[in-house]
Formats: sequence, structure tokens, C-alpha cells
Amino acid sequence: MTETAVLTIRRATEADLPAIVGMLADDPLGATRETLDDLTPYRTAFARIDGDPHQHLVVAERAGRTVGTLQLTLVPGLSRTGSTRAIIEAVRVHADDRGSGLGTELIRWAVERARELGADLVQLTSDATRTDAHRFYTRLGFADSHLGFKYDADDGAAADHVG
Amino acid sequence: MTETAVLTIRRATEADLPAIVGMLADDPLGATRETLDDLTPYRTAFARIDGDPHQHLVVAERAGRTVGTLQLTLVPGLSRTGSTRAIIEAVRVHADDRGSGLGTELIRWAVERARELGADLVQLTSDATRTDAHRFYTRLGFADSHLGFKYDADDGAAADHVG
Repeated sequence: MTETAVLTIRRATEADLPAIVGMLADDPLGATRETLDDLTPYRTAFARIDGDPHQHLVVAERAGRTVGTLQLTLVPGLSRTGSTRAIIEAVRVHADDRGSGLGTELIRWAVERARELGADLVQLTSDATRTDAHRFYTRLGFADSHLGFKYDADDGAAADHVG
Repeated sequence: MTETAVLTIRRATEADLPAIVGMLADDPLGATRETLDDLTPYRTAFARIDGDPHQHLVVAERAGRTVGTLQLTLVPGLSRTGSTRAIIEAVRVHADDRGSGLGTELIRWAVERARELGADLVQLTSDATRTDAHRFYTRLGFADSHLGFKYDADDGAAADHVG
């Protein structure tokens, strides 16, 4: 891989699942939440994502390797004079490719794609413990104007650092 | 209206738009963002919401009056072993009905509905200036575990206290 290797960002297919789930798991928070030994629940979830025209799950490839992923969701709404929001979730850069500016390219791509898809506003939440990520998003022009609240609907208790 | 008036929460129709937009505008942040003199952009947005099976825009009625609204969005995802998230947006309680426990009923309803619709996790963001809302969500069992970032895709600048 050279410095000039081209980055391609494209829609994810089911064949990308092992690489995506590998990146989701290779993370201090993800390590406790993901299960790599059985991809069945991920295949079920992938079918739900793939069947919803407002979901845009993508992978980034460089020199034949999967180096990143994110999911963009378009949410039409009434507030702010009928604004459509784009929500970015599950942003991951492969451990071997961190610090290479790839995260910046991914998020800039997502903002541009959101705009093309008609979004007026792009939003995301980041775990309060991810202080590096917060600096990263602020540098990219995001305003840290909100608090993000989570509730674990599976067990009825407040979710402990999920998402 | 008596203390025992029944609360009904139902899917919003286009006929509910004036009442919903009125509630969105009757708010310190909403007052600067909404335009009540022309509902056209809201009608366009309503058609987008109504046509998306993963959007659940509802109104709460009591004694023949519209007293609240919220929008629930189902977002399938891969992370957390293929969890589906429900996002709550645009929660409003009519000014005449605040402090009556209605907000609690609305959010409890939304969590229960999200669970019925298959969500494992319910999440929302709240503007950092809405400290009363933060206490409210924490009391209902939500964990304030995240920071929420926004980016204004319309003008390319970080959004100033939107959403």
C-alpha cells in the first residue's frame, strides 16, 4: 500500500460482514458487545438494513483492504421547518489505518452524501469516554451542542455506555 | 378537563399539522426555527414521514385537545450484535399541560412502543441548555452516556443549537 492508494467508499454487501463486524469488535467499547463466533444475528440485521432505503451502510476500501465503515440514516422530520436529518452511526477505522486521515475522509464523505440525499442536518452521538473522537468531530466543524441519552429496552434499565 | 381524562396516543395525520407545528414553535429554541405562517414545508415533510414505515409520528390527545407529540424512528444496525435502535425526536408537551406528568407518560409510551417494534435500545439527544429535560430523562432511567454532535449541512457550518 502506498500513500497514493485510492480510497473507495461503496455500499456494503453481505460479503463485507466479517470485515465490518471485525472492526466493530476491535474497539475498547465494542470488544465487550460484539460476538465474532456466530455471524447469524449480524446477517439478520444486515437484511433489515439492506431492505430499508433510508439506510446507507458503507465500507471504505484501499489497496484491496476494507479499512473503514459507517452507517448513514436519513430521518425526515417536522421540526426546523420540516428538516431531514442524517444520523451517522457505527463509524470505525481499521486499527492498522488509524491516524492516516481516513476518519476525516469518511466523515467528510458522509456529510457530502447526506447533503446529496437531502439532509439539512447531520448528527451523531459519541460515547462520553471517547474524548479523542470529540476533538475529532469538533475539528471537522460539528458542534457538541447536545447530550445523548440511551435506554436499554431489552432489560428496562438505563443502558451502560452503549452505542 | 378532569384529572381522570383519558390520554390517547395515536398516529398523526396531516390534519394534526397545525397543532404539532404550534407545539414545536412554542418553545425557547423552536421559536427561532419554525415558521407558522406557511405550513407548506411541513406538509412536504409530513408526506416523507408518513411514507416511511420506520417513522412513527404520534400525537397525544386528552379531552379533545392535542396535548403532546413525538416522533419515533426505528434504525436497524449491526453494532451490539445487530441491535435495532429507536430514536426519539421532537418531543413536545403543550404549554398548558406541562408539569402534569404528561411528558413521563409520552416517553414511557415511546419506550414501550419501541420495544414492541423490536428495538433493543432507545436513544435521544437533548440540547445542552435544556437542563430540566436532562433531569427528566435521567429520572426515567435514561443514561446520559453520550455527547451529541450536529453539523448544519445546509450551510456547511456547525449547527448552532439545533434539534
